[in-house]
Amino acid sequence: MITKEIQLRVRYKETDAMGVVHHSNFTTYYETARTEMLRGFGTTYRILEESGVMLPVRDVVMRFFTPARYDDLLTVRITLREMPSVRMIFDHEIYNEKGELVNTGTVVLVFMNAASRKACRVPDWFADLFRPYF
Amino acid sequence: MITKEIQLRVRYKETDAMGVVHHSNFTTYYETARTEMLRGFGTTYRILEESGVMLPVRDVVMRFFTPARYDDLLTVRITLREMPSVRMIFDHEIYNEKGELVNTGTVVLVFMNAASRKACRVPDWFADLFRPYF
Amino acid sequence: MITKEIQLRVRYKETDAMGVVHHSNFTTYYETARTEMLRGFGTTYRILEESGVMLPVRDVVMRFFTPARYDDLLTVRITLREMPSVRMIFDHEIYNEKGELVNTGTVVLVFMNAASRKACRVPDWFADLFRPYF
Amino acid sequence: MITKEIQLRVRYKETDAMGVVHHSNFTTYYETARTEMLRGFGTTYRILEESGVMLPVRDVVMRFFTPARYDDLLTVRITLREMPSVRMIFDHEIYNEKGELVNTGTVVLVFMNAASRKACRVPDWFADLFRPYF
Repeated sequence: MITKEIQLRVRYKETDAMGVVHHSNFTTYYETARTEMLRGFGTTYRILEESGVMLPVRDVVMRFFTPARYDDLLTVRITLREMPSVRMIFDHEIYNEKGELVNTGTVVLVFMNAASRKACRVPDWFADLFRPYF
Repeated sequence: MITKEIQLRVRYKETDAMGVVHHSNFTTYYETARTEMLRGFGTTYRILEESGVMLPVRDVVMRFFTPARYDDLLTVRITLREMPSVRMIFDHEIYNEKGELVNTGTVVLVFMNAASRKACRVPDWFADLFRPYF
Repeated sequence: MITKEIQLRVRYKETDAMGVVHHSNFTTYYETARTEMLRGFGTTYRILEESGVMLPVRDVVMRFFTPARYDDLLTVRITLREMPSVRMIFDHEIYNEKGELVNTGTVVLVFMNAASRKACRVPDWFADLFRPYF
Repeated sequence: MITKEIQLRVRYKETDAMGVVHHSNFTTYYETARTEMLRGFGTTYRILEESGVMLPVRDVVMRFFTPARYDDLLTVRITLREMPSVRMIFDHEIYNEKGELVNTGTVVLVFMNAASRKACRVPDWFADLFRPYF
């Protein structure tokens, strides 16, 4: 199991007429956390795509607790619970500056050959980066 | 059980570098379908908000099947399975023009007093609109 | 000069904490109007892209008058004032249901060879669609 | 004249099917830079709004040079050229990591009384923060 925390600042654009962050933005917060988690492993999602492998999203599950507001500094705690295989599963918890739980979410992504657009297994070089942690 | 279908055209803005609709947009497609379903009942979500009641999202569950692309004309089939009470649960199926299943999703919303920001029950006038169907 | 009007309904996602449509969404409203204007000429922007030519945006100018709100039915009047050459220039006026002017904007797009990512002239087959109007 | 630089990382969500950042996102990059510039003056846009004054956008002018891509680390240089009065005018230049100019843009915002939704002058306490620089 690997866990990482990133912080991000809520943009005005991300709020809606209820005065809080619109729920559609949380998938983007997760995505930002994934990007930074991969960078922490010495690669990037961009490098993965340039190698001919994509990671489209297959499932998203989200629950909302306390609303987030403009200019809140949110902490996204992202967790990878299992070795990448044909898929990667990321869990997320988002907290505000008071330590209140704002949101939880899980995202399942599947490895896909960019040329054929068919599902594939995790590339070896990519899996090797994660092996020491599992 | 009440079902309604709406159609919407994928905007270029909604695509991403994989050449397909970014997953974050599907919650907005569901929202558009909810808006039109409520309008079909002779009210609108705007009227509900102006009456002092909001419907924030508590849960989202989505699964992705076939990707959607720019300019696809999507059909969103939205279903309300139970009488509004303290919450409303909407199920969605999205199809492309070939009839392929693109996405399924469920959204749970909870009634909230806009002034107190506390959970509340469905207003009577609003519930009455749905009663004939359940 | 060619003018066309389309209507679109403001989505909740497009509002912000001021309770009005966030200014970033207007470029997307223009884009939706461009898409429909091209369809009216018997082609689509998707067909143009599939032929190996893209139309990236080079300039945007927007002015905001009256705010738009959730569920407003907006009319976008889009005008093409000159024959496509190395570029296309679209002017837009957006009105609400009361006929109030919400926004005006101009977008300049340039033809680009998708493979080389270099500027190019309008393809002949595409220009021919517009010739009868200028 | 006051200048500040911020850095931001392009999100996958912000890309489109051309493989580059969709033009609509640049207004949000400007907004992020404004937020951080105000914070540098010892206040925040949130504090301004809580004091009953809003700053809606009246004009946007943007020009696009080199495209930005997913995971690019962009530098936004924001400049305030004149004392806030009834309006604030911000100029922006965005560079990629190679130092290439990606985009320039100007945004004009006007002070508005949040309760009456009428234009107003800059509040004195807010203007005082900027006076030493002009």
